[in-house]
Amino acid sequence: MKVALDAMGGDHAPAVNIGGAKEALELYPSIEKIFLVGDEDAIRAECQKQGLSTTSPRIAIVHAPEVIGMAEPGAKTVRRKKQSSINVAMDLVKAGEADAFVSAGNTGAAVASATIKLRLIEGVDRAGIASGLPNEHGICHLLDAGANPEAKPEHLLVYAIMGSAFARHVLGVKHPKVGLMSNGEEDEKGTTFTKETFALLKGFADSGKAPFDFVGNVEGHDLFETQLDVVLCDGFTGNVVLKSCEATAKAMFKWLKKELTANAVRMIGAKIAKGAFVAVKERASAESYGGSPLLGVNGVVIIAHGGSTAVAVRNAIRVGMETVQHRVNPHIEATLQDVKR
Amino acid sequence: MKVALDAMGGDHAPAVNIGGAKEALELYPSIEKIFLVGDEDAIRAECQKQGLSTTSPRIAIVHAPEVIGMAEPGAKTVRRKKQSSINVAMDLVKAGEADAFVSAGNTGAAVASATIKLRLIEGVDRAGIASGLPNEHGICHLLDAGANPEAKPEHLLVYAIMGSAFARHVLGVKHPKVGLMSNGEEDEKGTTFTKETFALLKGFADSGKAPFDFVGNVEGHDLFETQLDVVLCDGFTGNVVLKSCEATAKAMFKWLKKELTANAVRMIGAKIAKGAFVAVKERASAESYGGSPLLGVNGVVIIAHGGSTAVAVRNAIRVGMETVQHRVNPHIEATLQDVKR
Repeated sequence: MKVALDAMGGDHAPAVNIGGAKEALELYPSIEKIFLVGDEDAIRAECQKQGLSTTSPRIAIVHAPEVIGMAEPGAKTVRRKKQSSINVAMDLVKAGEADAFVSAGNTGAAVASATIKLRLIEGVDRAGIASGLPNEHGICHLLDAGANPEAKPEHLLVYAIMGSAFARHVLGVKHPKVGLMSNGEEDEKGTTFTKETFALLKGFADSGKAPFDFVGNVEGHDLFETQLDVVLCDGFTGNVVLKSCEATAKAMFKWLKKELTANAVRMIGAKIAKGAFVAVKERASAESYGGSPLLGVNGVVIIAHGGSTAVAVRNAIRVGMETVQHRVNPHIEATLQDVKR
Repeated sequence: MKVALDAMGGDHAPAVNIGGAKEALELYPSIEKIFLVGDEDAIRAECQKQGLSTTSPRIAIVHAPEVIGMAEPGAKTVRRKKQSSINVAMDLVKAGEADAFVSAGNTGAAVASATIKLRLIEGVDRAGIASGLPNEHGICHLLDAGANPEAKPEHLLVYAIMGSAFARHVLGVKHPKVGLMSNGEEDEKGTTFTKETFALLKGFADSGKAPFDFVGNVEGHDLFETQLDVVLCDGFTGNVVLKSCEATAKAMFKWLKKELTANAVRMIGAKIAKGAFVAVKERASAESYGGSPLLGVNGVVIIAHGGSTAVAVRNAIRVGMETVQHRVNPHIEATLQDVKR
């Protein structure tokens, strides 16, 4: 099991990527090698700083002279910066030298590079990002979280198949439950797009072929409260929802911190109950999930949050490892073949 | 200043509506009268229970034999249940007997009833709901929060004009700042719809005619952190975002409560710091804002959350009062006339 890590990706590169690689090597013995892809000097310096031996057979530095910035237009820049860390790392997966790609860098660039270099699985028209949210009953994946902003109903049908394959094989959910994000739970709610998608999903579920239960339209609260494995939406909605949920959690922690430090008495109370805040922060944070699989490409591609910490990068590597080990892509291929028949 | 209150609207009707009316009458002397619209027997019984004298000249019970349920299809049911509390209350505004309509009931029904009975302001093609969010710099209104799921770019241009009129005249913001919700802050981000809307807003702002500053594309975190008065989006996106933010806040309080009561030590700390949780809950809750104006109809219509408490209903009545007193609709009409020239 070998991982190609974009060492230059994210807001805190290369530090968090080197830190995440170090933790992953310590924690996951099944990882044979991590390719650290990016500016060689910067990577060497950071490895030395963090005490990660570059002579270890489990580490390989692969130089990539270019970096794609977080704010650059992804798809365009991928074509221009051929020697960027994202492209060079993706090439390692394409060549079969690495089993999984992990990046906390520019999402649009990673999606474009993966689609161009690895191509799509047969039967898939658009790849989708499955972002895990901390649901009371497990992890609920919002799919698509941003790869395909103007999705078509048939894209969401394939997302339902792919997302439920991920839930079944990686998370061990026997009968994945799939909902459709809408502006109300009643069947007739939604836009032309969601109504067409609803009809398509319902028809497929009624045919008996669906490898999932379609629960119908869902709303924001279902992401956290209802036993659901996949919530489908177009990539624009998914991206906006995901960022809005993150922003709400962040704002609440900020206000809580302000109020808890507003006077000496509250500060004492906060200190005594500190464990509770740490636990909630951990649960709410993206760190624990760490990486979102880009489903639909011919290879394992994990997108980590731009603001990832070392723990988040380590967890993204873990998600990559699990996606490879549980053979998610072969299962997706087989299911798509089955459905066609 | 007279208010027509849908006494039967919301998940906790009529109790919270009667409670909200009672509080509003106590707190706001400029309210001459509140019409309590709905089932007369139920309203009388609840008034007696809560000690609200129905013989007061500031109270008038208006019987409406029908109720539109929260899950009924709004637009259709409004046409069928002509004697529903929403329709009867709206008729009072239409007839000029009341200055504002307030309901915590079925949003789709209230929007449809308002549009049919009050009609739209000249120059407005679709009404939009402006929902206030607790931004660090004041209140940021998400517009549209659900009235118009499949909006066109020109609808959002009119929303920008209406939302900034509300911010200027009700909230006292001299130079309202307007952003466009997108899947990234860079100008080129978005869907076909948001890109067309962006171009329209930018062209209008560049013409020097705009009564607001257009700040460009914004994301989830801007709702809470950036000095913004209006964030524009189609009603599907707005509805989904609003519900997802509410759900995140709710989930976090739930987790916090669970963790704070997980052991005796934490419970002691939580008790000492209790004031902080109350303050954050109040800030995060929809109660403080209480009501979202439906902008664009010929009359003042305030939509309250279905889960409203009495405090939320009281605040929705206050928003209605302020919208009337600050002459928001005449200002919107005048601005739309100005822009045309």
